[in-house]
Amino acid sequence: MNSATNGKVITCKAAVAHGPGKALVIEEVVVDPPNRMEVRIKILFTSICHSDLGAWIGTNEAQRAYPRILGHEASGIVESVGEGVVDVEAGDYVVPIFHGECGDCVFCKSEKTNVCENFGINPMKKVMASDGKCRFWSKDGNCPIFHFLNTSTFTEYTVMDCACVVKIDPTILSLKQMALLSCCISTGVGAAWNSADVKAGSTVAVFGLGSVGLAVVDGARARGAARIIGVDVNPDKLAKGHTFGITDFINPLSLDTPVYEKIGEMTGGGVDYSFECVGCPDVLRQAFLSTHLGWGLTVLVGVHSTPKLVPLHPMELFYGRKIIGSTFGDFKGKSQLLYFAKDCITAGIKLDEFITHEMSFEKINEALQLLVDGKSLRCLLYF
Amino acid sequence: MNSATNGKVITCKAAVAHGPGKALVIEEVVVDPPNRMEVRIKILFTSICHSDLGAWIGTNEAQRAYPRILGHEASGIVESVGEGVVDVEAGDYVVPIFHGECGDCVFCKSEKTNVCENFGINPMKKVMASDGKCRFWSKDGNCPIFHFLNTSTFTEYTVMDCACVVKIDPTILSLKQMALLSCCISTGVGAAWNSADVKAGSTVAVFGLGSVGLAVVDGARARGAARIIGVDVNPDKLAKGHTFGITDFINPLSLDTPVYEKIGEMTGGGVDYSFECVGCPDVLRQAFLSTHLGWGLTVLVGVHSTPKLVPLHPMELFYGRKIIGSTFGDFKGKSQLLYFAKDCITAGIKLDEFITHEMSFEKINEALQLLVDGKSLRCLLYF
Repeated sequence: MNSATNGKVITCKAAVAHGPGKALVIEEVVVDPPNRMEVRIKILFTSICHSDLGAWIGTNEAQRAYPRILGHEASGIVESVGEGVVDVEAGDYVVPIFHGECGDCVFCKSEKTNVCENFGINPMKKVMASDGKCRFWSKDGNCPIFHFLNTSTFTEYTVMDCACVVKIDPTILSLKQMALLSCCISTGVGAAWNSADVKAGSTVAVFGLGSVGLAVVDGARARGAARIIGVDVNPDKLAKGHTFGITDFINPLSLDTPVYEKIGEMTGGGVDYSFECVGCPDVLRQAFLSTHLGWGLTVLVGVHSTPKLVPLHPMELFYGRKIIGSTFGDFKGKSQLLYFAKDCITAGIKLDEFITHEMSFEKINEALQLLVDGKSLRCLLYF
Repeated sequence: MNSATNGKVITCKAAVAHGPGKALVIEEVVVDPPNRMEVRIKILFTSICHSDLGAWIGTNEAQRAYPRILGHEASGIVESVGEGVVDVEAGDYVVPIFHGECGDCVFCKSEKTNVCENFGINPMKKVMASDGKCRFWSKDGNCPIFHFLNTSTFTEYTVMDCACVVKIDPTILSLKQMALLSCCISTGVGAAWNSADVKAGSTVAVFGLGSVGLAVVDGARARGAARIIGVDVNPDKLAKGHTFGITDFINPLSLDTPVYEKIGEMTGGGVDYSFECVGCPDVLRQAFLSTHLGWGLTVLVGVHSTPKLVPLHPMELFYGRKIIGSTFGDFKGKSQLLYFAKDCITAGIKLDEFITHEMSFEKINEALQLLVDGKSLRCLLYF
């Protein structure tokens, strides 16, 4: 497709993080051509997720790296591919996945897990796997710019490992919609469908009604859950929650008692499933205690960045309540995302409702602030 | 059967705990007749479990109660029944279950759990449910003696709720063997069969080779596990472990590296299932880390009496390793124990090998010491 740029460096615009919480700087960067088994992608749409916020703010000090190009939720078109890449080619529409699938490791060969030994999510990783180097450089070529979550999508062009690139069919879902499937929809709906396997007629509590939490709600609704209780300290989430399928809303700030007691009263002993989409130990404990003794399942979805332990005593695991973690909705990205896109149509997942704002890429700091303020679900940035 | 004693108090011998770690005193006690839905049982065999030891020593101060009759692993014969009891009658052979099954609560009516709202295990409970009183009294009738774990079997006669009494068929397993099914065998084999559902060809690590741990080993062996690694700091457990089916033995004291690293090396990344049968947070962490990323399952069986939290960071649940608790092997005692006894025969569970000592009830302090010293598995006491 792009014989003009194939094999050559590309100079383009990117939003570069230069320090914790500092406004991203839109600047020109130099993007190397893809190495063997790598793909260079022209990003068409990207949005912002709380994981980007966390890395931007530098919540986890050990994971900080600057200068860096953040971003992992996007869709785009392949500009060129490196040697050995056979499953995508220049001109293909693709989405990046932060939780890759190499297809070769013991995990990828197992049906039990979506862990990938080689390209699974790794918040510590900041360079390419093949040579330990960056593909991004400052405009003068002197300063490497770090990668993020196997993806780095806050840029016109990015380079990714082929294991993290999924070819899509834009006639099934639009490129805007597919961008959401590269993280929040897959993570949330997959937590309900794959990790918890929510059954029709069951009761569900979702703690944290950000995009991922609302995607859990939507997934549970699509599965026919009888009652879906949304929990959030932001009262604006009530209306959004109802759009996606909550039947009840609890604002913990308006309660005199712990949330789990209220949920226990509302459901005759607790819900069948609870989802923690916040990343806070106290919330995790509330979510656990909100489930029914004997069979309640808590699915941990939120990213916990403090060094605090799982806030449970071992004996609390002895009464049939279970707790599990869910990464990328337990999807194997490369092999299942296309089918999941079709399933979203069948199940009526409310994709467009997640896109509350759209603006040009240059306004990325404005978009960041909307998310910080809890005013947006997904703000889609276009180039 | 015993019309002579029916409806009357019985004076008999019991081993009474009068204080934390104090030698049990064999003394005459008065045993009330059973109330409505209660059963009075003549104990024929009883043995000692680490839960008895814990209560005797008073490890958990909040659970202490004296004077008290401990003991929960036993078999016996019904002397008389209270009003309303229909599923056992005088003369029936029975075993006590510390984790009862009322049959009426929301849990008993669910196939998902063996929790029972009314008669499930409750280490805080020390009196009968119906009237909040004791059925045991000092010889002069002035001082109530507390119950333990719904059972109290260190006595010639005990009174239990019908929900905790299981009628057995002594032609399937002997009364000695059935005594073991009232706790350790069911707990251990059930953890392997029900809680973990160990698959043929899988790899297993069992931390703590006491009777429950060895029952896990035996259960995993019966399921066809390819490799069963026993872990214990007591070198004498090597030989015992081999009797029940371990293929490898690790004494953590003889290693320079953490046990989980050794197990990872031995198994190409970790075992499919690990069982913590010790009740120690550090061991629990080792057991968790010993499992394979992506699908490893840790089953918590040991009783944790310290207030320490689950020794895991929430993010450690994000890579497919799971942790669950198992109580009474996830058996519903009243409805499943008889079938389990038959399954033990079919599967060739090594019941007699657990009985390393037999002595008269009067020697109970000697039997306690054998368990404290790690010299016995089960010491069967007869009346």
